[in-house]
Amino acid sequence: MTVSSASTPAPRAPDTGGSVVISVDAMGGDRGPSVVVAGMAESAEKNPEIRFIVHGDQEQLTGLIARRKVLAGRCDIRHAGGVVTMHDKPSQIIRKGEGTSMWSAVESVKQGEAQVAVSCGNTGALMALSMLRLRKLPGVNRPAIACLWPSRSPQGFNIMLDVGADIRADAHDLLQYALMGASYARNGLGVEMPRVGLLNVGTEEHKGRAELKQAHEMIEQAAPGSFTYVGFVEGGDLPSDRVDVIVTDGFTGNVALKTGEGTAKLVGDFLKDAFSNSIMSKFAAVLAMTSLKRLQKRIDPRRVNGGIFLGLNGTVVKSHGSADATGVSAAIKLAFTLAKSGFQDRLAARVAQGAVAASVSAAEAGEAS
Amino acid sequence: MTVSSASTPAPRAPDTGGSVVISVDAMGGDRGPSVVVAGMAESAEKNPEIRFIVHGDQEQLTGLIARRKVLAGRCDIRHAGGVVTMHDKPSQIIRKGEGTSMWSAVESVKQGEAQVAVSCGNTGALMALSMLRLRKLPGVNRPAIACLWPSRSPQGFNIMLDVGADIRADAHDLLQYALMGASYARNGLGVEMPRVGLLNVGTEEHKGRAELKQAHEMIEQAAPGSFTYVGFVEGGDLPSDRVDVIVTDGFTGNVALKTGEGTAKLVGDFLKDAFSNSIMSKFAAVLAMTSLKRLQKRIDPRRVNGGIFLGLNGTVVKSHGSADATGVSAAIKLAFTLAKSGFQDRLAARVAQGAVAASVSAAEAGEAS
Repeated sequence: MTVSSASTPAPRAPDTGGSVVISVDAMGGDRGPSVVVAGMAESAEKNPEIRFIVHGDQEQLTGLIARRKVLAGRCDIRHAGGVVTMHDKPSQIIRKGEGTSMWSAVESVKQGEAQVAVSCGNTGALMALSMLRLRKLPGVNRPAIACLWPSRSPQGFNIMLDVGADIRADAHDLLQYALMGASYARNGLGVEMPRVGLLNVGTEEHKGRAELKQAHEMIEQAAPGSFTYVGFVEGGDLPSDRVDVIVTDGFTGNVALKTGEGTAKLVGDFLKDAFSNSIMSKFAAVLAMTSLKRLQKRIDPRRVNGGIFLGLNGTVVKSHGSADATGVSAAIKLAFTLAKSGFQDRLAARVAQGAVAASVSAAEAGEAS
Repeated sequence: MTVSSASTPAPRAPDTGGSVVISVDAMGGDRGPSVVVAGMAESAEKNPEIRFIVHGDQEQLTGLIARRKVLAGRCDIRHAGGVVTMHDKPSQIIRKGEGTSMWSAVESVKQGEAQVAVSCGNTGALMALSMLRLRKLPGVNRPAIACLWPSRSPQGFNIMLDVGADIRADAHDLLQYALMGASYARNGLGVEMPRVGLLNVGTEEHKGRAELKQAHEMIEQAAPGSFTYVGFVEGGDLPSDRVDVIVTDGFTGNVALKTGEGTAKLVGDFLKDAFSNSIMSKFAAVLAMTSLKRLQKRIDPRRVNGGIFLGLNGTVVKSHGSADATGVSAAIKLAFTLAKSGFQDRLAARVAQGAVAASVSAAEAGEAS
């Protein structure tokens, strides 16, 4: 276990013999560093190739990591005394965040020491820091946060983006989201030819949303050879097998995400009520335990833990603030899968290609008019 | 049973001795008039005060109604040969819809023969026809569709609006939605002092949505004495006990509604899968039948069937196109409750008062600046 300081620029990590290095912000979550380290240990057990650069309080982390045998020799600890809290405003963190574990974790990706960063911290601050330090990919105007959604698709999940990086999105942004989402589906979920849909309302009244109609045409043009464009989809299609990637602006996406989570939780609570209602139903619950556990696993939000920041020069995975060890482990696994697939380079190439295509078609439209 | 033609303006209905008259479009639903008449019969059995004016094919309706003893002497059939289909465009119906059962059903409310109209037909066409024939309430710029949402609130449901009448809403529209939603909660759900929230994303990034911040202030000022304003709420609060009325634009509301429905259905399907998985779990399902039925009833979309069109000179209830008899009966019950409470007059008074208050505060703001 190596200890170095985050205040001096770190050198490139030594040759890790084909292993994948994940940069982990150990301090930002609601449950503290012990849960993050437990999640790292879970991941490390399953993936022998994984190594970590861990950012946070050196003394605490040294103790926590020493207690996990599976992490021995696989963690590089970087001391960072500051912690970004859930109440810190992104603007403050941009000005004064240097020296926090979150800043340090993003910095490891910027310096090329780690392929992906993972944090359970404040989403707004993490996005602001990631944009400040990693900068936007050429051709991307607005980065996006993509989430996974339990679905009837063969891979078990659909991808939705943007779910809250920016409340606005114009037609060009929506096209970029389609390209980035398709790339994520291919590299993160292994969907060879992702089906992409654009979220809209299913009535005649959508005439007013000019940017959606424009995006509809732009995405249709960009699809061939790269993904299948299924056209407009509705809220009810989010968990369906009609689509793998759902594209929307960050306002609508955030509301949809939280509505879905809230509804699933409501139904789950009602189910619990139903089974604790009588002696008979409690007995039934015992008999049905295996089935209920299977159900719980299918809709367990911890399994889909990990919003991905897309559109930056580097990949950042945002885990839920309240994630437990299983949740943190799921986020790390996602980071690992993306790193292994060379996702960042593929994404950059795809976006650049899309930007060229869009400017060509814009130029053609200009000539035609 | 009386039969008259929809083509000649109908006179005021004769004194119905304190009963409530509901105008029913029998033809628009996916399942045809027999299901609508079955739903009417269910309602009529529970509410001795209810009477109907039924619009559609006279011969079919006469036969269907004759088979239901509970409807004897309580239905006034109006022949309308035309049917609005799910594929008709609202613009076509406005031009050529006269003579359809939907047009005729709305007309009965316009003529004051019935207090509320109920239709399972095409939402866009029904809204367009309702706006054309009933006209907007003074002070209302955009009418809204309000839906019920299963929740942890004491009344078991929250109200959300707009869920798709119009994809846009400015600050003044959102204020009107708050007033109309509060009035609906009071008269439709019996909530004395409704808690109203404005849907937003829970991050710092909402700075760009100027109309939401403005609406936030306007609703806060309008609240005292009429409803409690709880401020911004998130998608996760829709089924919560934090709020009774959720205000949003029709694009976001429509996506949220369909996302919630889709998620509930997904979890329900997963639950069914789980219980049919093994002999043990099937046995457990039998034991848990009563509990599962109770759960099903709590989240049954048919129980919350009925979107209300608010902001017109007359109340229109839109039932799901695929509603069965229980669904139609729920929509009619809602129409009945609103009619009994004198909802339309109260709503008009409240909106007028709100419009005055808004113009006074706008004038004051003008003076101050």
